[in-house]
Amino acid sequence: MEPADFSGAEEEPAFCNDLSDAQVTIVGLGLMGGSLAAALKAQNACRRVVGVARRTSTLQMARSMRFIDHGTRDLQAGLAQADLVILATPVRDILGKLATIGDDCKPGCVILDIGSTKARICAAMERMPPHIEPIGGHPMCGKETSGITMAEPNLYRDRVFVLAPLERTAPRAQDLARQMLEVIGARPLLIAPQRHDRLVAAISHLPYLLSVTCVSGAEALAQDDELVWRLAAGGFRDTSRVAAGSIPMMMDILLTNRGPVLEAIHHARERMTALEASLRAEEIEALETQLVAARNRRKEVFP
Amino acid sequence: MEPADFSGAEEEPAFCNDLSDAQVTIVGLGLMGGSLAAALKAQNACRRVVGVARRTSTLQMARSMRFIDHGTRDLQAGLAQADLVILATPVRDILGKLATIGDDCKPGCVILDIGSTKARICAAMERMPPHIEPIGGHPMCGKETSGITMAEPNLYRDRVFVLAPLERTAPRAQDLARQMLEVIGARPLLIAPQRHDRLVAAISHLPYLLSVTCVSGAEALAQDDELVWRLAAGGFRDTSRVAAGSIPMMMDILLTNRGPVLEAIHHARERMTALEASLRAEEIEALETQLVAARNRRKEVFP
Repeated sequence: MEPADFSGAEEEPAFCNDLSDAQVTIVGLGLMGGSLAAALKAQNACRRVVGVARRTSTLQMARSMRFIDHGTRDLQAGLAQADLVILATPVRDILGKLATIGDDCKPGCVILDIGSTKARICAAMERMPPHIEPIGGHPMCGKETSGITMAEPNLYRDRVFVLAPLERTAPRAQDLARQMLEVIGARPLLIAPQRHDRLVAAISHLPYLLSVTCVSGAEALAQDDELVWRLAAGGFRDTSRVAAGSIPMMMDILLTNRGPVLEAIHHARERMTALEASLRAEEIEALETQLVAARNRRKEVFP
Repeated sequence: MEPADFSGAEEEPAFCNDLSDAQVTIVGLGLMGGSLAAALKAQNACRRVVGVARRTSTLQMARSMRFIDHGTRDLQAGLAQADLVILATPVRDILGKLATIGDDCKPGCVILDIGSTKARICAAMERMPPHIEPIGGHPMCGKETSGITMAEPNLYRDRVFVLAPLERTAPRAQDLARQMLEVIGARPLLIAPQRHDRLVAAISHLPYLLSVTCVSGAEALAQDDELVWRLAAGGFRDTSRVAAGSIPMMMDILLTNRGPVLEAIHHARERMTALEASLRAEEIEALETQLVAARNRRKEVFP
């Protein structure tokens, strides 16, 4: 017998440092959670992937597609043995869970959410019990379709994945999150929660609202003339695409990011007013300048 | 000698009734004109395809890709023997040409334009000399990229192609246009010019302006925080796609469809104001109702 073998084994629980040793529990097996599970299993990246979902049919599909090793509808049971918990439900559901799940998780458990807004989630994470290691996250990917049937292991590949560690987050916890990002091929980017929320209001939530406006603007004309939909082509299709997205997800995003979204709408309205004024007055140069600036920026962002 | 062989040959020029007998002259070999030429040649649909372009390099490329039988920079020479002329340049260029080319075309020549607005073009067509058969057209397809290098023979396939015949347009002329639509796989839809322009303002020109607003709205934030572009994902990419389109084309569209576009902006502004008000007041049901209506309509138009 060698003393080193059991020194302090009772006092210091062995925190998981390697993703390959970890049980990862994914709460919510929709498009995002399902794709994450699929990526982890496809890479054989961790000891065990456990999925938690509300519906038995979702768990059955996740198992049959080999996205998870084990599935349960019982949140507490799913969390009990987890080394890394991924919360992959809409933002307000995540907020509700963060308020209660701390006591269901073992010491050192890392909790990463992938909700689309970060300020309120990270504030709720601050209030979790001290034995938990919470960290905020937001992968910059998605589709206008939702549900596990749309999940795919490459969803995160080459996409920016925002990490918003708290002051309390231990380096080990951030490292475990980064290991997962590496495995799924995502590119980590550290941003503070408030800054994140202001940026995504402009680059994600505003496009959604403009997309909705694109549909409802045409709808206003359709009240006189239903033929309008027959003329829908690529421009309408692409500009309106994200309006087809998940309503519960978008409601949560808008309601938990109200201030920054209202600020983004204010900017958009100013720009639209400038376009309108130039067109109304036939100020050809001014109009062209605005169109050229937008085109150049778009081509720079997506070459 | 049989008298029937030359009876009235001098008095009644033999108007072309069949596309397969026609020389088709396409003026403008960009994405749209080039794709049309490619489709006609791929189907071996007419006697001869002649291309007219400003640049020798465009003509060389069109010839080397076998999109045309003959290319010329000389508009008059290109038009002289044409049975069917397709005007495939930006709207204001088409307007300029319609004012002058009548005398360069032979009697019975059918002139079809594929400009994006119709009221001013069809008015200019009314003023053409009586030996010409003008008809307005607008294919509901395109890309955000332009130029003959992006041309493809299937661009028109299964797309709606608006035809706006004038009162003066002979049935034979409309029939020749329809033969061409059939060959390229487009679906003809007859619409009067003013109605067309009001519809496309809502379903095409408004999406473009919202797409520009999407970019310039994010640009407003980028003045404080350049990181915003790093977070651009699928939502921004698709909503901003048409903002990358051809500026000369869009300037012409906006300036020749000012009234209907201003009307569409007015509707969009009202809808955006309603979204903003619901969000500001946290009227959850009202907000959700608007988002659901847009999602349902989008899913109906693009199932």
